Amino acid sequence: MRGKDPMPLSPGPFTGRTVTGLAQDLREGRTSSTELVKQALDAIAELDPQLNAFVTVDADGALAAARRADDELAGGVDRGPLHGVPVGVKDLIEVAGLPATMGSRHFADHLPDADAECVTRLRRAGAVIVGKTTTHEFAYGPTGDRSATGPSRNPWDPARMTGGSSGGSAAAVAAGMVPLALGTDTGGSVRIPAALCGIAGFKPAYGAIPADGVFPLSRTLDHVGVLAGDERDCLLAYRCLTSAQLREDTAPARVAWLDPAGLFAGDSRVASTVRAVSGVEEEVRLPAGVAETLRETYAVIQSCETAAVHATRLAEAHGLFDPEVLERLRVAAELPGWRYVQAMDERPRLAEAVSTLFDGHDVIALPAVPLTAPLLQQRETELNGEPVAVRAALLALTSPWNVLGLPALTVPAGTVDDLPVGLQLVCRPGRELLLFEAATARRS
Amino acid sequence: MRGKDPMPLSPGPFTGRTVTGLAQDLREGRTSSTELVKQALDAIAELDPQLNAFVTVDADGALAAARRADDELAGGVDRGPLHGVPVGVKDLIEVAGLPATMGSRHFADHLPDADAECVTRLRRAGAVIVGKTTTHEFAYGPTGDRSATGPSRNPWDPARMTGGSSGGSAAAVAAGMVPLALGTDTGGSVRIPAALCGIAGFKPAYGAIPADGVFPLSRTLDHVGVLAGDERDCLLAYRCLTSAQLREDTAPARVAWLDPAGLFAGDSRVASTVRAVSGVEEEVRLPAGVAETLRETYAVIQSCETAAVHATRLAEAHGLFDPEVLERLRVAAELPGWRYVQAMDERPRLAEAVSTLFDGHDVIALPAVPLTAPLLQQRETELNGEPVAVRAALLALTSPWNVLGLPALTVPAGTVDDLPVGLQLVCRPGRELLLFEAATARRS
Repeated sequence: MRGKDPMPLSPGPFTGRTVTGLAQDLREGRTSSTELVKQALDAIAELDPQLNAFVTVDADGALAAARRADDELAGGVDRGPLHGVPVGVKDLIEVAGLPATMGSRHFADHLPDADAECVTRLRRAGAVIVGKTTTHEFAYGPTGDRSATGPSRNPWDPARMTGGSSGGSAAAVAAGMVPLALGTDTGGSVRIPAALCGIAGFKPAYGAIPADGVFPLSRTLDHVGVLAGDERDCLLAYRCLTSAQLREDTAPARVAWLDPAGLFAGDSRVASTVRAVSGVEEEVRLPAGVAETLRETYAVIQSCETAAVHATRLAEAHGLFDPEVLERLRVAAELPGWRYVQAMDERPRLAEAVSTLFDGHDVIALPAVPLTAPLLQQRETELNGEPVAVRAALLALTSPWNVLGLPALTVPAGTVDDLPVGLQLVCRPGRELLLFEAATARRS
Repeated sequence: MRGKDPMPLSPGPFTGRTVTGLAQDLREGRTSSTELVKQALDAIAELDPQLNAFVTVDADGALAAARRADDELAGGVDRGPLHGVPVGVKDLIEVAGLPATMGSRHFADHLPDADAECVTRLRRAGAVIVGKTTTHEFAYGPTGDRSATGPSRNPWDPARMTGGSSGGSAAAVAAGMVPLALGTDTGGSVRIPAALCGIAGFKPAYGAIPADGVFPLSRTLDHVGVLAGDERDCLLAYRCLTSAQLREDTAPARVAWLDPAGLFAGDSRVASTVRAVSGVEEEVRLPAGVAETLRETYAVIQSCETAAVHATRLAEAHGLFDPEVLERLRVAAELPGWRYVQAMDERPRLAEAVSTLFDGHDVIALPAVPLTAPLLQQRETELNGEPVAVRAALLALTSPWNVLGLPALTVPAGTVDDLPVGLQLVCRPGRELLLFEAATARRS
């Protein structure tokens, strides 16, 4: 099916291949983990100078792990669908023995000695970590273009941003360097780059994948997520990473369209393209005022928690931050505490208001991002003849679901101006399989 | 036993009488609830013009409730030890049909139509509410001398503060106008006035008495508590107000003295008097730095949450606040959110540090307040030749236990300069009976 979709500029060895397909090839002897890892390493060597998706490539470690995976499979030990599959891990997530820079000069020399819990689970499932992927500094930015090691670049047009903060993970998968990558998502950091790079990205329910060993941006909003070519690979990876029980439903998913204009005045061509791909007819609307409160609540919680994480660095070593990140942190550090208290108190009310969307539907559909990938470092754009702040636009349709901890998936939904756009599907915790079913149904 | 203690200036009808004694008198026909309520009303009429303990007196309602209590007892319905006993309720706690001013001009016309949950429980236990007691405005102050209806005054010397914020409840009990009163305690608001007025006050574990229907000061730190002549009456009232199971221990309480100088450089005569009364020999110490962190954590959480409660009033009607309360709110509203986030994160670490105090002991003993009652409106005093801020001094020994939600009791512990001082006993949740046992053991 993915062959029908338009392609990024330079397809890599995993473009158009699914993890399920790779798993089959591995088990039927058509390939080996060692071969897949070599393909990944070759593709990184070839493509990454242009895309900067990787901060660290662990060729030796990955080849050794691949040999072990091959040996295990040959010996009858089968760890499941990720066994032997090369993956990338966002550089905000700790992998024992590999530098974790967090995209920052503050952590230039940081070498973790333990795996994050999600990495432990990934390894237990047999996945082979080929390297660490570029993150916006400390994951503090949806543009993906401020990192100590330079911006990640969009495989569809390297002059454009990947989106972020998991920009390297998105670029690595979108360019076919790896079939799967881990990311984190505090306000959209998995879904935004997935959408802008034309791949799938899944942010599960809050806490469904443990965040231990992941550098915090905002504990109340941080989620670990996955990026892959399509939603089926996301689901497959998610099953390996969560201990949550997935509820099987027999009835088909009831999907409703949420007009994105109620959240943000985005590019109407994006909305219409995504809606056409979604094939959804019914519509739901947010109650009046809820969109503003969601945005405000997100911004306040995120800002105060992020400023708390970085308070000591701000006081003692501010010169090591990227200037834009520093400026944003300084603004965040000024927000008064009473607003944080009010924002935290707001959440149950918001959850109640948003729950009305799900009264008659299992899944809500809307674009993941209300515009296509801006140029690198672009901070203002024009939509419908009005100037628009790029960061606000990027976050507008994804961050509400972080405030409420709702599972949200983005899948490719065609292009506008030859750049990819994403269809976002949102559900309540426990309805994830309906979410994935809805994503797959759109193809038929 | 209490006859041995020095007395306030004008003893009232309940001075030296216990709720247990009243309950016996009621059941053996020596008095009636109607008679007790009349005694309370007469005492209020006589003593309250000097002490200002009551904001609202509900003579009709109380007499009607007393008659019902008498009828019930006569008819064989016995609601337990509080049945027919007159009580005062802090004016921060809602009682249906009685004004609840919160000590503020903002709520001058506020008439709740429902009882707070603690009031419901009090009524269910048969207690008769005679009136609402003076609170520092919005409970925001440990001095008890800033209220829309004027300061409550200390029965031992009406030129001195009761302490607060439950100053009216303390004065009402200390002057013998009622044998029991409800208060609230966010940083010491039950224990401080109880200690300064020479009575007992109990702040239970966080949440042990529900705070529904109580105007918030700081939700994370707010506790509902009780004030009475001695610890046995506090326990008796507490049993009626909580649904927590009290664990019976057979071994005697192991009590250790916590040197208050580790928390605050208070009046050494207070410390030595209280310690002598406590009879405690073993000593424990807080780990280094913990006292400062407890103080800071308390101040930040309390300030930010209080500023959140009053944000709209601050923006729209600041002129209705008492000037000192307004000034403190303005300062509180400036505290940055990242400090609140860090303070909330600090709590588990603090709990762990403080838990070491209980490694070999069930109960920690220290003064409730490190000085005797200052003069009304006094904001600076001198201790050991050094100037000391009165508010900080009043809160210093009580607020740490609010941060951790630990049960804490103060009982009368003699006098310094003819003014009462209190012995504070602190335990872990679940060890309340040992706490009360330790208080009673000190008398033998």
